[in-house]
This record gives sequence, structure tokens and C-alpha cells, in this order.
Amino acid sequence: MTGRFITLEGGEAVGKSTQIAALTAGIEAHGIEVVATREPGGSAGAEAIRSLLMEGSDDRWDARSEALLFAAARADHVARLIRPALARGAWVLCDRFVDSSRAYQGGGGGITDADLMMLHDFGSEGLMPDRTFLLTVSADEAARRLTERGGSDRMGSKPADYQERLAARFVDLAHAEPDRWRIIDADAPAAHVTAAILAELAGWLP
Amino acid sequence: MTGRFITLEGGEAVGKSTQIAALTAGIEAHGIEVVATREPGGSAGAEAIRSLLMEGSDDRWDARSEALLFAAARADHVARLIRPALARGAWVLCDRFVDSSRAYQGGGGGITDADLMMLHDFGSEGLMPDRTFLLTVSADEAARRLTERGGSDRMGSKPADYQERLAARFVDLAHAEPDRWRIIDADAPAAHVTAAILAELAGWLP
Repeated sequence: MTGRFITLEGGEAVGKSTQIAALTAGIEAHGIEVVATREPGGSAGAEAIRSLLMEGSDDRWDARSEALLFAAARADHVARLIRPALARGAWVLCDRFVDSSRAYQGGGGGITDADLMMLHDFGSEGLMPDRTFLLTVSADEAARRLTERGGSDRMGSKPADYQERLAARFVDLAHAEPDRWRIIDADAPAAHVTAAILAELAGWLP
Repeated sequence: MTGRFITLEGGEAVGKSTQIAALTAGIEAHGIEVVATREPGGSAGAEAIRSLLMEGSDDRWDARSEALLFAAARADHVARLIRPALARGAWVLCDRFVDSSRAYQGGGGGITDADLMMLHDFGSEGLMPDRTFLLTVSADEAARRLTERGGSDRMGSKPADYQERLAARFVDLAHAEPDRWRIIDADAPAAHVTAAILAELAGWLP
């Protein structure tokens, strides 16, 4: 039996890591092994590449190098952690995956979606999630959470209009593949968001 | 005026770095700016990626992650050092370039040449050398030099039959593109090798 591969996507501070923790508990309660992970990173090699990507100035990497580094980190993560977990029947919950590359590098970064998917086809042999949840928050709520969070990393330290274009890009990706994506209103309290996601997964639970 | 982009290729200990130094002096003597560099590495970002590639155990990276990391390092090297140098008229002498990826990852590494060139087309917008010199040594001479050199890095710590297959793969690449490649007998004394390469470049010198 192969496990399910589920990803959470969205901009910064939409609550992805909170949801990953709550969903892990909710799915484990059904007696299923859950592997909770995140990108960039998630395996030893990918975490080393993550350090290269997250540290340094905004212009440390040009767009093409950055896209290749994300693809390399993802290839390591898929080969070393995700595929083995799925093969033994575990469910994998991942905070960001290839759709984040498509939204960040493909949207504002000037790399075409076709090129990003070509890198994914090569590096990760095209592995796609069984289900992807896009957590959306209103622009006001996003601004409030980002301010609350304070300092941000290299990827998050962009102006508000960048965050809005990013959010729009995620919605475009979701609309283009409605079978895979579910859009979840994450302005709601965290427990409601968890319940909404678990309801969407109910058909796969024993 | 655009400069010339010249690469040296071959297995370990064929004398590439010695030749790069001698050729730099020989070309600078004509009043030409020369940028001598090497791969993996050659720019700040690429050197950081080089550390990831050269350190750790033999199986630290699977073949796909490794190919993506080399392509990322090369993209940085091309964008930040090689293209700007060529644009201002300098000649660039590079110890290893994409052909090393093709020989190492494409030969023994199990990645197709088409995939490696696709990564190069994406990352470095397909930049190819104007001239590539393959330095070849006999198997006996290669073994003698490797022993003399003692400890080797992760890429060089492979058995003798691996080195022979690698040498054959380089010759195949040279034969497939005879206009770009020149094969140089590097069993000869270093000064003879330098003279042979400079003779091949004479038509481009002022």
C-alpha cells in the first residue's frame, strides 16, 4: 500500500506549519504513520542547500541558479525522504513543494512554468502531490500576521504588493488543476482550518 | 569585441591547472586580459556549492541532485564571472566546464547527455566554449601521477577502470564535435603541451 502525499501551499504566515502539526496529530489518530516535513530542506542534503538559499543578500543568486538549487534540494528530499516514506505506506505532509517554486520563481522570478516543471521532471522524476491545500488569508490579515511575526527571512522580506501577486499566482495554479488543489480560507481560527482540511481527506482515511 | 572562451578537459592529474597557469602567461604576453578560473567553483556562489559537492561521503548525493548542483554552480559562474569577462573582451581559460559534467555524470553517473545539456541550456543559456582542449595521458602515466599526488577528493577517489572509462568518454565527446575540440598528448613535458596549445590558438592572437 502506498501512502498519500499531501502538500500545503501559500504565502508567508498563512499558518502552514501550525496546520502541519495539527494534521499530523489528526491523521496519526487513525493509526497511520505520518512524516511531516518542509521545503526547502527536509533531508540532510536539502537542508545544506537550504542554508545556501536562505542566507546572504537578496541578489546572492540569479534566478536560474536559484531555480536549480531549489530543484536540487527537492530532488534530494524526494529521493531520500518522501519516496521511501510513501513506499512503506506512510502519509507525507509537506510544508511547500514544487508549487512554491512555480509561484515564487515562476511568478516574480522570471522563470517560465515549463522550465520549472522540466527541472522537476528531471530532478524528482515528476513526483506530484495527491492533494494540495492552498491556505489563503485576506491582505489585511496577511499584513497583520507578517508584522506580528517581525523579522523575516530572505524569501519573505519583500513588499506587500509582491505578497499580493504571489497570492494571486497560487490561486492561478489552483484553478489550473482543480482536481489536485483545494483552497482553504485561513482567516478562520486554526482549529476550523484543520477541521476543513481533515474533512477533505476523510475519504482516504480508514 | 568579445573575448575567447577556452576550456581544458580531461581526467585527474593530466596537468590542467599547470597548463592554465602557463597559458595565462602566454596569452597575457600578447596584451590580452586573461581570466583563469575552474569548475566546480570560480565565483562566490559556485564555490559555496562546490563545498557541498566535494565534501562528505561518496553517496552523499544521488545522481540527479548532483547534476542539478553542478548546473547551479555553473549557472552562477557563467552569469557572475564568465559572461561579464567575455563581454569586456577578456579571454576566459577554464579548468573543466560542461563537458566534465557530461563525462562524469553522463558517463558513469547514469544521467543522459540530453538531460545534462538541457540543464546547461536552462542554467547557463547554453554557453559553449570557443575551443576545448582535451589533455590525454596514457593509463600508466595517469596511474603514476595519481599515486604521486596521493590523497584525492571525492571525484577522484575512484578505481582505475573508472578513470579509463572516463578518459574514453572524453574522447567520444571530442570526436562528436571535432570543430570545437583539440586532443593534446599530455604525456609530453609541460612546456611542449603549452606550446602545442598556443600554436592551436595562434590564429586568434593579435
